[in-house]
Amino acid sequence: MSVINSLFGRPLRSSDELTERLGAAAGIPVFGLDALSSAAYGPEAALALLVPLSVVGISYIVPITICIVILMTIVYLSYRQTIEAYPQGGGSYTVAGQNLGPFAGLLAATALMIDYVLTAAVGISAGVGALVSAIPKFQPHTLLICLVILVLITLVNLRGSRETGVVFMIPTYLFLSSLGAVILAGIGKSIMSGGHPTPVEPPAALPAATAAVSLWILLKAFASGCTAMTGVEAVSNGVTAFREPVVQTARRTLTTVIVLLAMMLLGIAYLCRAYQIGATEPGPGYQSVLSQLTAAVVGRNLFYLITIGSVLLVLSFSANTAFADFPRLCRLIAQDGYLPVPLAERGRRLVYAWGITTLALLCGALLIFFDGVTDRLIPLYAVGAFLAFTLSQAGMVEHWRRKDGSRMHIFLNALGALATGATVVIVTITKFVSGAWITTVLIPLIMIMMFSIRRHYERLRTQISQAATLDVTDRTAPIVVMPMMEWTKVSRAGLQFAFKICSEVYVVHVSTGNADKEFLDNWHKDVEGPARQAGLRMPQLKILKSPYRFVIGPIVDYVLELEGKNPGRQIAVIIPELVEKHWYHNFLHNQRATWLKAALLMKGNRRIVIINVPWYVDD
Amino acid sequence: MSVINSLFGRPLRSSDELTERLGAAAGIPVFGLDALSSAAYGPEAALALLVPLSVVGISYIVPITICIVILMTIVYLSYRQTIEAYPQGGGSYTVAGQNLGPFAGLLAATALMIDYVLTAAVGISAGVGALVSAIPKFQPHTLLICLVILVLITLVNLRGSRETGVVFMIPTYLFLSSLGAVILAGIGKSIMSGGHPTPVEPPAALPAATAAVSLWILLKAFASGCTAMTGVEAVSNGVTAFREPVVQTARRTLTTVIVLLAMMLLGIAYLCRAYQIGATEPGPGYQSVLSQLTAAVVGRNLFYLITIGSVLLVLSFSANTAFADFPRLCRLIAQDGYLPVPLAERGRRLVYAWGITTLALLCGALLIFFDGVTDRLIPLYAVGAFLAFTLSQAGMVEHWRRKDGSRMHIFLNALGALATGATVVIVTITKFVSGAWITTVLIPLIMIMMFSIRRHYERLRTQISQAATLDVTDRTAPIVVMPMMEWTKVSRAGLQFAFKICSEVYVVHVSTGNADKEFLDNWHKDVEGPARQAGLRMPQLKILKSPYRFVIGPIVDYVLELEGKNPGRQIAVIIPELVEKHWYHNFLHNQRATWLKAALLMKGNRRIVIINVPWYVDD
Repeated sequence: MSVINSLFGRPLRSSDELTERLGAAAGIPVFGLDALSSAAYGPEAALALLVPLSVVGISYIVPITICIVILMTIVYLSYRQTIEAYPQGGGSYTVAGQNLGPFAGLLAATALMIDYVLTAAVGISAGVGALVSAIPKFQPHTLLICLVILVLITLVNLRGSRETGVVFMIPTYLFLSSLGAVILAGIGKSIMSGGHPTPVEPPAALPAATAAVSLWILLKAFASGCTAMTGVEAVSNGVTAFREPVVQTARRTLTTVIVLLAMMLLGIAYLCRAYQIGATEPGPGYQSVLSQLTAAVVGRNLFYLITIGSVLLVLSFSANTAFADFPRLCRLIAQDGYLPVPLAERGRRLVYAWGITTLALLCGALLIFFDGVTDRLIPLYAVGAFLAFTLSQAGMVEHWRRKDGSRMHIFLNALGALATGATVVIVTITKFVSGAWITTVLIPLIMIMMFSIRRHYERLRTQISQAATLDVTDRTAPIVVMPMMEWTKVSRAGLQFAFKICSEVYVVHVSTGNADKEFLDNWHKDVEGPARQAGLRMPQLKILKSPYRFVIGPIVDYVLELEGKNPGRQIAVIIPELVEKHWYHNFLHNQRATWLKAALLMKGNRRIVIINVPWYVDD
Repeated sequence: MSVINSLFGRPLRSSDELTERLGAAAGIPVFGLDALSSAAYGPEAALALLVPLSVVGISYIVPITICIVILMTIVYLSYRQTIEAYPQGGGSYTVAGQNLGPFAGLLAATALMIDYVLTAAVGISAGVGALVSAIPKFQPHTLLICLVILVLITLVNLRGSRETGVVFMIPTYLFLSSLGAVILAGIGKSIMSGGHPTPVEPPAALPAATAAVSLWILLKAFASGCTAMTGVEAVSNGVTAFREPVVQTARRTLTTVIVLLAMMLLGIAYLCRAYQIGATEPGPGYQSVLSQLTAAVVGRNLFYLITIGSVLLVLSFSANTAFADFPRLCRLIAQDGYLPVPLAERGRRLVYAWGITTLALLCGALLIFFDGVTDRLIPLYAVGAFLAFTLSQAGMVEHWRRKDGSRMHIFLNALGALATGATVVIVTITKFVSGAWITTVLIPLIMIMMFSIRRHYERLRTQISQAATLDVTDRTAPIVVMPMMEWTKVSRAGLQFAFKICSEVYVVHVSTGNADKEFLDNWHKDVEGPARQAGLRMPQLKILKSPYRFVIGPIVDYVLELEGKNPGRQIAVIIPELVEKHWYHNFLHNQRATWLKAALLMKGNRRIVIINVPWYVDD
């Protein structure tokens, strides 16, 4: 237990819960890291689509970013209202589900679950990808480093949420302050030079234009830049994790995250235009937009290294947002019966251990399957987030209509729903071939699974509930069967227990060809003799031959046969079992008792019960 | 089951065993592949140590190889006698153990076990190493390819030994025929050209000499070349796998393997001297000796590719020898009680599934730990094999002395023991720093483990054997305790069973804070009512509060408390359990029953038994 305690922390009482809650300062790293770190890839994703337009394209980054910030503001205002309307935690699942019905709710939830898994995988792989670009000798171990980071994040999260906030606070604030300083310095230099600053380190040369400006290209750039908005959902979904007053703390966190993100996005866009920075092709010679920008403003010095280092850190730690929120989402769905109940149960440290573990496994599988390469994961991304945004805001429209909300409320949410809905369409169409189709296929499959889980629980409930009152009219003792390979103190203890609960005892001996004689001698002398003396009904011995060296199969068949011959009677199978003091001593035995129990449970029926008589080994 | 059958084959009867046995032709690939494939690295290992001597060194390869072949002949004659003296399978473990005592036997066995694991790992990694040198784009996936091959070999072996022979027959005979043809053609060309043949493709240039000839260098080269002899042990250890007449078939196999290996070694040595072929440094520009030799004799054509391809195949498949023999060795040791009994039990396909699995896991760990790189594994190698040879032959000397063997017998084995013993010393000293120390440390650790396993079994045996006769004087019914969270058909079935075996029933309810009221209503109406009516002793209800949300801990504590209050009585804990039709439905439940059973077994004692009342879910 001490190993478990030092890895995961001591168990916490339910009443410890309040002290585990987050303030705004600790809430930003936990629920905002994903949104904030997307400043590192959102602008780059938009610029990448403007590359064919060369210099002309870069001039469009500022208006595109303004559009994204406007969209983000609409989404922000909507979620602000959501936090207020749903202080018990109102993610898209709750809002869409309660206002548009369970189907819409599950659709939103499925979209979000996919997105959280992708957030975790993309965050880790992007961080590690940046790390191995900086230190190429780590390149061959990309996947291993990804998995090590995944395990670390998982362990930190299994310890509980407050400590998580502390662990991730330092890199987040380092990232915000260093990148903020770069942006402010750049804007200052730009203004002083009349809008045409001289870069300390010149950015990569822009390739010649290969296309003319079209609405389609600008729309695609806008849609791609919208990846900067993934993660905005996190705060409103995790409201219950905040300190009292819950609504105010959560809103303050959301406001801070959105303002910081908007300022970073606008600052980056402005500086890209001022310094003429574009995206570069992946592969040799690749330089990220933030790396070019930082080098242009401050040069390649220690400060550059700190800034890029903090970018790497927050990128890989942004996965943590998914670890804070995915389990909470799963819990809500599980409470409604659409996911397995263990996902709704808290563990020793007041965290949803099963949700964390599930996410870690899915994310690990994704990383292994895609070899830890970010590029292939990105196109699957963002569809889910915007689908959830749309459903959530459509749900809010319905909410205000039911609750007589103001026209402004309805207008704002309807506008948001339309804007994000249009984004879903654009993202799905532009990214369909390169990966969005996978999301399109997965969503219905997961929803079918969730509906069939719910149906299973309902069927189960009808089967076991409304039990009749206790019926004790038939109290005939059960027939007892006990397998016995040889006469030892272990089998003696089992047989003595058998005679305590009934007088009709059957013993099964599976013949392995040797030592049968010795067993029979013991049987006559040590069992039949005393039974006769005590005047008991004689225990029946059944010897089974087993040509396949199987022991378990013949015993199970015999029990089933006996059960068939005695309709209405219960059959109790006594399984004596050696229990070792130390777990590793179990490797010394063939675990026949365990397998026999499993086989009886699997092939048996309600009339067959299993009695485990343990025999403890002394040290 | 059909998936299992198609992966591993249908289960086999014990009486099928004879038809599963091997003839000489199938025995060569199974037990000889390791020995034969070592022709691909033995001569190279010797030549590598002669590099500092340049041309002079190469001239020594023929006498060194003759020494190795002489040593091999001595070992061969010894093992021929061993097969005869031990037709039931006489590896070094048996021979050393029976003649020199269990300590010597276990020492030999430990040495061999280490060597088998290394054989498997080195075989696979050398094969994959050669493959990725030929096709460099596979290089980044070296470890993955190693592990895939390991899994394939493991599956083939789990299917059973005859099919294994068939699978490995083709590459073995391809290797023997193509390399044989190259050697014969080379010798022909050399003789026709008066001992100075012109190479079709010139071998790598020899570096200038950096050392003078010394006995030490020649001894080291001899010791290194002796790696060609690892695997000779395999046949005599696996005698029981051969077809009747067992001794003759095994001897014929051993003779064939040794003659073929000796001819290949001598042929390679002769051609290396004739064509002036030396070992090249690892790294860029590296060319294996066999590749240089084949290219010199036949040029770089299709035949070259076939030859090198078959070398790669047998190298990686040579691991299979270890898979055929390691489990048989483990079985012998387990039968004597020095290794866990499951290693001595045959599985569905008459193979020692646990032994195969253990080897696969150890070999996999080694491959992962050394990143699939052969070079680092080689120095650990060969110490074990020669230690086993020495002990086996020393054992045979003792055997002949006891059985009045001829002087010739004793002389031959004593000579062998001295020669191989000297080799152990040389190999250990020359390879100590580069890896042999690991083997030197591991051997005593493994032996300590084996002796403590044996001691554990002996202690266990004394504890459970010599059971007294059945004592049925105390037949007081047990006290029954049953945990109940709510009143369902599942708990009803459990409680009704309780009343069938005794009248003193305690029910434990762990309060989770909600639904307690509903439970109490049910309790009064559905349990207490009928019990009163039937005039039964009233079941006792105990409600436990649990601040840590733990359910299992409080129940276990309560059971232990009850047990303490009732000395001399047995306590039966009834655990009702929902059993799903499909295994994957188990993920839908919290497995509380399983955990409770495990906790009770772990913390309980001999007076506490566990009764599992299953409740099957209908589809």
